[in-house]
Amino acid sequence: MDINLNERYSHRVQGMKKSVIRELLKLTAKPEIISFAGGLPSPKSFPVDELKIVIDEVMENEPEVALQYSATEGDQVLVEQLIKYGNKAGNDITEENLLVTTSSQQGLDLVSKVFIDPGAKVIVELPSYVGGLGAFNSYQADMIGVPQDADGMSAEILREKLEELDKHGEKPKFIYIVPDFQNPAGMTMTEERREEILEIAYEYKVLIVEDSPYRELRFEGEDVPTIYSMDDKGYVILLGTFSKIFAPGFRIGWIYANPEIRNKLVVAKQSTDLCSPAFSQRIIGRFMEKGYLEKNIEKIIEMYGKKKDLIIKYFNKYMPQEASWTEPEGGLFLLVSIPEHLDTSELFEIAIENNVAFVIGEAFHHDGSGKHTMRINFSYATEEQLHKGIKRLGKSLKEFIQANKKE
Amino acid sequence: MDINLNERYSHRVQGMKKSVIRELLKLTAKPEIISFAGGLPSPKSFPVDELKIVIDEVMENEPEVALQYSATEGDQVLVEQLIKYGNKAGNDITEENLLVTTSSQQGLDLVSKVFIDPGAKVIVELPSYVGGLGAFNSYQADMIGVPQDADGMSAEILREKLEELDKHGEKPKFIYIVPDFQNPAGMTMTEERREEILEIAYEYKVLIVEDSPYRELRFEGEDVPTIYSMDDKGYVILLGTFSKIFAPGFRIGWIYANPEIRNKLVVAKQSTDLCSPAFSQRIIGRFMEKGYLEKNIEKIIEMYGKKKDLIIKYFNKYMPQEASWTEPEGGLFLLVSIPEHLDTSELFEIAIENNVAFVIGEAFHHDGSGKHTMRINFSYATEEQLHKGIKRLGKSLKEFIQANKKE
Repeated sequence: MDINLNERYSHRVQGMKKSVIRELLKLTAKPEIISFAGGLPSPKSFPVDELKIVIDEVMENEPEVALQYSATEGDQVLVEQLIKYGNKAGNDITEENLLVTTSSQQGLDLVSKVFIDPGAKVIVELPSYVGGLGAFNSYQADMIGVPQDADGMSAEILREKLEELDKHGEKPKFIYIVPDFQNPAGMTMTEERREEILEIAYEYKVLIVEDSPYRELRFEGEDVPTIYSMDDKGYVILLGTFSKIFAPGFRIGWIYANPEIRNKLVVAKQSTDLCSPAFSQRIIGRFMEKGYLEKNIEKIIEMYGKKKDLIIKYFNKYMPQEASWTEPEGGLFLLVSIPEHLDTSELFEIAIENNVAFVIGEAFHHDGSGKHTMRINFSYATEEQLHKGIKRLGKSLKEFIQANKKE
Repeated sequence: MDINLNERYSHRVQGMKKSVIRELLKLTAKPEIISFAGGLPSPKSFPVDELKIVIDEVMENEPEVALQYSATEGDQVLVEQLIKYGNKAGNDITEENLLVTTSSQQGLDLVSKVFIDPGAKVIVELPSYVGGLGAFNSYQADMIGVPQDADGMSAEILREKLEELDKHGEKPKFIYIVPDFQNPAGMTMTEERREEILEIAYEYKVLIVEDSPYRELRFEGEDVPTIYSMDDKGYVILLGTFSKIFAPGFRIGWIYANPEIRNKLVVAKQSTDLCSPAFSQRIIGRFMEKGYLEKNIEKIIEMYGKKKDLIIKYFNKYMPQEASWTEPEGGLFLLVSIPEHLDTSELFEIAIENNVAFVIGEAFHHDGSGKHTMRINFSYATEEQLHKGIKRLGKSLKEFIQANKKE
């Protein structure tokens, strides 16, 4: 190659980073390592038997549709089911609000494509979902972080930031929030806080992107309405996915948005991948039609709820008193904090020696903060692995704290 | 909505157009219309029986892999098969050159993401694949068209354009070519012309994006090597897809590129959709392993070759002498030209009245030229529809020519 490619790549490539998590997952692929690093659903959560029935029927009755291109907006059977599903959950949507996506990561990509010019401001949570940060970054957004308190993104600090931007005549493109069982923190934004945030959004005329991949997986406590359902002005864009309630291997998600924004997202999707897999879409559509999805969600809630209880039990048993953790009411993740002067990327090395892995908290902070935190996934490990793994993690952390005392 | 969204969208949205073809397809969805407008494969080309066997086996033996996330680079079984497939076809590739994509439209999106800043120059053919133009446009490329002659993209004019850019110190990001059975023209670039274009690319240090979705579907004539296989400097990025040789409903394609570029594409893909559907990938991988793909390609070649012969027969029979057309040796499309002073968008209205549809040539020209051409797809219509449809098209064209004489 006699071309200096660095002179040829787009500016956005300079800012793109390999996903820390995907790279970590490779490191931690050794069989002896118990990994809490990924965000993988348990293979036991996949509805294999029901899926076999549905696939057989689709391949028998309608292969010519399932194997063909679909409309960019989505396969008709799935669209109908998603409208029912959305309305049942309290979100007032019609076909005009809905776009089927090739995973909710594509949802993040499309929203970024439609709104973010280089240097555009986007408000994110501290911490925030790493895939969201990656998408915004790949469109060269200038991210502004708002920390969480016990009720979710701080409304007070959000207002301060928006006020400050307003003084400079700047409007952020949107506020990015994962309100339910947040990745990585595991926390859920209270209803009051949602109302507050929405009011602030109205006041400063800023859109909200509500990313909610885990919402259906509540083990305990009361459901909180989506911000989308509270919004009567068309400010909120909601992203959903089948990855955690069905299977990631089909790569199907959805967007709700007001019709004008939704139409722009459709156009953006045309040049991105033309349409989502018709095969995945039609099968999920028929799967939902049969009522299999609700059953599968019930099964997963029971499975993950049990794992969450177990992991908390093992935390209490094995973790040193210097550690604290969130106690999620649903989802797949929780966040562990260690004393602020310590860095979990150093702990990571000890943990790998002890054959246990997690994701360093820094990955979830656009500004490189959060070094004393780490994300723990509890959906993928077996119950036995949860026990052994947290024991190893506790041991690693004790060693790490001890080593830092000596210095 | 009390926000003026037009002030909030990214600049790239202003330039994004709804795909003319997708919109046309909607217009032409009435059952009485025989449509040559789409680019759909024949439903009869789908390997339904073989696919049932493979799906059953995968769901029985390895559902936990097929339903889970895959690596961003691609599912291991599919990657192995694609390497064999690529090498058998004369392309010297290893895992380091390969990226599995969610359709070759995603390939176009990723290449654009990695190379195109707003205003960046990209060389395209006149005419060019509309999905390529759409992707480049969505990244705000400044496209420069090079017309085709009988051997493919004009080497002479390409050199002129590059020389001109060079004088202004400008380098286009890449030259975009569909060399095999081009969409829309149906023509194939000769081996000599490929060599010439590659030499010019080397001389001016410009990359080539070789988009080859139809390459395997040759009915007659001799295979011409890919430009990728002729390149020993890492200049060529090749895009391939299973949409036309297997089924579009799985949305799986691939990219070959030199390892450095391929790694940038992997990073870009992480924030675009994390990974392609594991289910689609694993099933295609096992399908290839069994040797079903070659058999299916043979079947399609026979089917489409027959349709191509028929459509040419009907053109000769029904089209007025003012029309001329390309005679493709493979693929799914041919291009019809009518006298230069006539506009096929006006013909389109008469055609729709006569219940037949095509795509206006203008859609394939980034500069709005090509108004006297139209693209005809011959893969989707049945043999009977080919007969009736071309008869209707001939009638429409005669009416159109007649009407324009009177004026």
